[in-house]
Amino acid sequence: MDATVLIGYLAGTFTTVSFLPQVIRSYTTRSTHDISFKMLLLFGAGMLLWTIYGILVNSMPIIAANVITFALVVVLMAMKVKYN
Amino acid sequence: MDATVLIGYLAGTFTTVSFLPQVIRSYTTRSTHDISFKMLLLFGAGMLLWTIYGILVNSMPIIAANVITFALVVVLMAMKVKYN
Repeated sequence: MDATVLIGYLAGTFTTVSFLPQVIRSYTTRSTHDISFKMLLLFGAGMLLWTIYGILVNSMPIIAANVITFALVVVLMAMKVKYN
Repeated sequence: MDATVLIGYLAGTFTTVSFLPQVIRSYTTRSTHDISFKMLLLFGAGMLLWTIYGILVNSMPIIAANVITFALVVVLMAMKVKYN
């Protein structure tokens, strides 16, 4: 694996893992009032488009990061709907 | 501009624009309690790494999207610090 792909995976790990403390916080506090649903909707749509881009440019770091982040965004959307 | 680059820019537009309703909501409500600071820190670090990746793979959509999103994440971090 070359340095570029490694940095891609590291970047993807950071942006993906970043949603975990948010999911944990929202689950623990049962409060998602300050999170914008429009943000989650637009971000989720962006994740799907980045996944397509990753497939087109044949970049596994982009595909993997965006598929997992998309799943976490969907979890946050579900909590936002449930707790509001 | 070919379809791949177009999808990349579209993806970048979505993920970048997604932070705007969050910034507007946080600014309007002066409340960022439900937003995880750890999430913003990790996400911001990820944006920087994606920017480096974008430079290495010579992808203007990746560079542009991540630089702008990084700036919006910094704004959210500042609001989180100020309002908490």
